[in-house]
Amino acid sequence: MTLEERVEALEKELQEMKDIEAIKELKGKYFRCLDGKMWDELETTLSPNIVTSYSNGKLVFHSPKEVTDYLKSSMPKEEISMHMGHTPEITIDSETTATGRWYLEDRLIFTDGKYKDVGINGGAFYTDKYEKIDGQWYILETGYVRIYEEHFMRDPKIHITMNMHK
Amino acid sequence: MTLEERVEALEKELQEMKDIEAIKELKGKYFRCLDGKMWDELETTLSPNIVTSYSNGKLVFHSPKEVTDYLKSSMPKEEISMHMGHTPEITIDSETTATGRWYLEDRLIFTDGKYKDVGINGGAFYTDKYEKIDGQWYILETGYVRIYEEHFMRDPKIHITMNMHK
Repeated sequence: MTLEERVEALEKELQEMKDIEAIKELKGKYFRCLDGKMWDELETTLSPNIVTSYSNGKLVFHSPKEVTDYLKSSMPKEEISMHMGHTPEITIDSETTATGRWYLEDRLIFTDGKYKDVGINGGAFYTDKYEKIDGQWYILETGYVRIYEEHFMRDPKIHITMNMHK
Repeated sequence: MTLEERVEALEKELQEMKDIEAIKELKGKYFRCLDGKMWDELETTLSPNIVTSYSNGKLVFHSPKEVTDYLKSSMPKEEISMHMGHTPEITIDSETTATGRWYLEDRLIFTDGKYKDVGINGGAFYTDKYEKIDGQWYILETGYVRIYEEHFMRDPKIHITMNMHK
């Protein structure tokens, strides 16, 4: 390869590394906004063309607003949630599309209302599709397959000393 | 340095970044296949020269098949497992060898059989050696030192609503 071609190849590969990092940060922002219940900011992580399937594909949505409205209604302030993403496997499929696998651990705690003291723990394998529009990466598709999910009653004597949603 | 030398240095450094990312993805695939009980796919992450020590080095294996057979037998369908890897420290030792440290959190749930309702939680520091063969990274050595491990009886009233292994 000529020097010119080698520099061009470097530029392309460095762009891919930057895209992988940007996608990891996009997902970090998604989890942070989800558990921080920052719905408007969460919407900015979703592609206008989003197709989302939740709960093993039973629930499907077709716009950022539909997704955030669903999340907002299904994760009210009475519910503390933690979605912890691990060991991503990101593949750049083209200059504007990518695929990502994430190992998810999740934890839900109901602090009030009908489900007070209910706890839910689980794990899942996420598979996402991402799309780059005008230099910015967005979540285009997200869905997961549960490893397991368990529901239980928490000991009421557990004292929640801090809760950002109350 | 000449332009040629500068391009060469860039190529070398970018290759190291790509190798670090590839190793992180390799480990993500290993954990995903382990907990998804996808033994054939797990085998593809292991080097033909693998030397593995589990349980603080007491168990040692010398081929991918030996490792996956052991894992398959010791982690049957009655056992939900979650191995969550955190904060990797990857060092590229040479063009074809690397070392990786991982902070592991693990959770095991026995859903049936002799150990029904047993739970095991723990944490460990993993130290791995990786090997690159024909451009592909593999786990060459993996072993860990336990931070702690705890065994307990889970409340039978905990309701497992989803389990990919059942």
